[in-house]
Amino acid sequence: MRILVFAGSLRKESVNKKLATVISGKLDVLGAEVDFADFREFDMPLYDGDIEAADGIPAGTQELASRITAADAIVIVSPEYNYGVPGPLKNAIDWLSRIRPYPTIGKICFLASAAPSMVGGARGLIALRPALSFMGLWLSGDSFSLAQANKAFNEDGGLNDSDLDKMLDGMLDRFVKVTGSAQTT
Amino acid sequence: MRILVFAGSLRKESVNKKLATVISGKLDVLGAEVDFADFREFDMPLYDGDIEAADGIPAGTQELASRITAADAIVIVSPEYNYGVPGPLKNAIDWLSRIRPYPTIGKICFLASAAPSMVGGARGLIALRPALSFMGLWLSGDSFSLAQANKAFNEDGGLNDSDLDKMLDGMLDRFVKVTGSAQTT
Amino acid sequence: MRILVFAGSLRKESVNKKLATVISGKLDVLGAEVDFADFREFDMPLYDGDIEAADGIPAGTQELASRITAADAIVIVSPEYNYGVPGPLKNAIDWLSRIRPYPTIGKICFLASAAPSMVGGARGLIALRPALSFMGLWLSGDSFSLAQANKAFNEDGGLNDSDLDKMLDGMLDRFVKVTGSAQTT
Amino acid sequence: MRILVFAGSLRKESVNKKLATVISGKLDVLGAEVDFADFREFDMPLYDGDIEAADGIPAGTQELASRITAADAIVIVSPEYNYGVPGPLKNAIDWLSRIRPYPTIGKICFLASAAPSMVGGARGLIALRPALSFMGLWLSGDSFSLAQANKAFNEDGGLNDSDLDKMLDGMLDRFVKVTGSAQTT
Repeated sequence: MRILVFAGSLRKESVNKKLATVISGKLDVLGAEVDFADFREFDMPLYDGDIEAADGIPAGTQELASRITAADAIVIVSPEYNYGVPGPLKNAIDWLSRIRPYPTIGKICFLASAAPSMVGGARGLIALRPALSFMGLWLSGDSFSLAQANKAFNEDGGLNDSDLDKMLDGMLDRFVKVTGSAQTT
Repeated sequence: MRILVFAGSLRKESVNKKLATVISGKLDVLGAEVDFADFREFDMPLYDGDIEAADGIPAGTQELASRITAADAIVIVSPEYNYGVPGPLKNAIDWLSRIRPYPTIGKICFLASAAPSMVGGARGLIALRPALSFMGLWLSGDSFSLAQANKAFNEDGGLNDSDLDKMLDGMLDRFVKVTGSAQTT
Repeated sequence: MRILVFAGSLRKESVNKKLATVISGKLDVLGAEVDFADFREFDMPLYDGDIEAADGIPAGTQELASRITAADAIVIVSPEYNYGVPGPLKNAIDWLSRIRPYPTIGKICFLASAAPSMVGGARGLIALRPALSFMGLWLSGDSFSLAQANKAFNEDGGLNDSDLDKMLDGMLDRFVKVTGSAQTT
Repeated sequence: MRILVFAGSLRKESVNKKLATVISGKLDVLGAEVDFADFREFDMPLYDGDIEAADGIPAGTQELASRITAADAIVIVSPEYNYGVPGPLKNAIDWLSRIRPYPTIGKICFLASAAPSMVGGARGLIALRPALSFMGLWLSGDSFSLAQANKAFNEDGGLNDSDLDKMLDGMLDRFVKVTGSAQTT
């Protein structure tokens, strides 16, 4: 079972990348083959129908599509920008939706977020769901939002709060079980 | 495999009930044991914390909860009211969320809608997703919105448009396969 | 200038009612004529097209409509239920939308929320906006979400946190100015 | 009274640009000073916190901010991408939100959309509202979604459907009246 994990943030020191790293480690322990991607690998311009008509789908979008195609499931760890989906992540989804059939169809998807605020990015995940559902992803009923994320990680990069850590373990255990058993495509 | 199907509308001649009937017939053909419920069976008052404190969970909510518990998956066919979730359906979800653990956790869920408009209730389903995800349901990446629903049914209660009918067949086939294979709980 | 204020909760000891009381007091000081309503005054059944066909618009809905019609602006203080609009409040909006023209058209509206959580009901307000916009209300760019609301009120019913109190003062001052100057209908 | 109008699409032949042109003409007739901008004037990279730390706010974002600051009101005509806000438009909002105080605070905003589909982009506007409200804009209760937009314009660039044209006239007339009378800042 192969799972693609990436954070929807370009910033190098993003707390979302740190959480994506934690999740990757846990999925590895659970026996999954983890493809941990840096969102910077999927470099693409702002969506512009004229660019698409002239040059086709950008290489970075094609790279994202092929990594999704190779995976059985996806984990997206996304910040919340202004109560919504980060522009760069939505831009990647918009480009991706120009490929038919959508490479996302029938893949299982787990969402997580991290933010310095007390909300932990939960509103961004709510805003993200409709677009991902539209793309044919099966969204986990679980999702994990890490509040006060600037204080949440210990020196080894793990979560300070053992209760939260166990909660995340339980969610990922269920996610791997469903991915392993479901024939969604 | 047992699947609970109901329309989130109280009206007897609701096009959503008609679509729920079509879906139930198709799930039956696909080999599922269908529990087709009338939303009127889940009679409950408007949510009021004082009523809950005095009288506990209403019988209609408990009935809905036990029907969900007995099912492996759920199909909700919901109208769209004012760009959002119908008040009565949201009210049922709000009451349901007072039962711990949520009876919905880990169940697979397929959403459909029907409306006389050209949109077919698709905005209502978007608004419905966050609450259902919060309740731990695994939402299908597919959803089916029937536009111009007042003209969509033939005399036998089936769909007039054979392309739409085939599309729905494909979605339900995938839904049954996932429900049959996934161990979400 | 007349402003209708109500909390979208039926419970007597609701923190949203407490916040609605605080807001009413402040609007009174700002010179507005405040119509403070208890949501229980707008008693109505769950929306059912068959009830509407048989009995017309319920008395409680008509009462809400006439109170809105008499007002220049509206303040709704709403809890968040399961990431969404409380069922009873959405139900009232759904019934209200059966009156043509909508009594809400062109009224200015300020949204607030209160909740024991750290989020303070902000997600419920996000879910509430589309339906209210659909009803023709002009939604204030400001909104006020009171987190940890169970600890937020002092013995006199005011807000403990003087910074939050000042922020709310500023929002309501702007709200009253716009309502006084705008000719939205 | 000065009103900034732009379409949230980069494509030259965008139906949203055509609708923005129609709206600009109508606002001009209504006596407003129209600043019609091409979204390409606001050139900026995908949001990246590291770029911001190194180079500050991009020139295109600053240009957008100063155009907003100079205006009393804003009209955004936005396509819908995958049930949501177009990535490039959300990206511009995300950059804009890094300027304090937000240049958008207290401005009146009217939303419109155009799309070849029967929905006319209405779902995109729903998704757009939370972020704009968060930025302190006062959102009009009206919004205008143009369905089947590929067939909606006549040779002179006006709307074929005279009923829709009158509806839009009425909405913009109200928008100009409110903008002229409201003191939102």
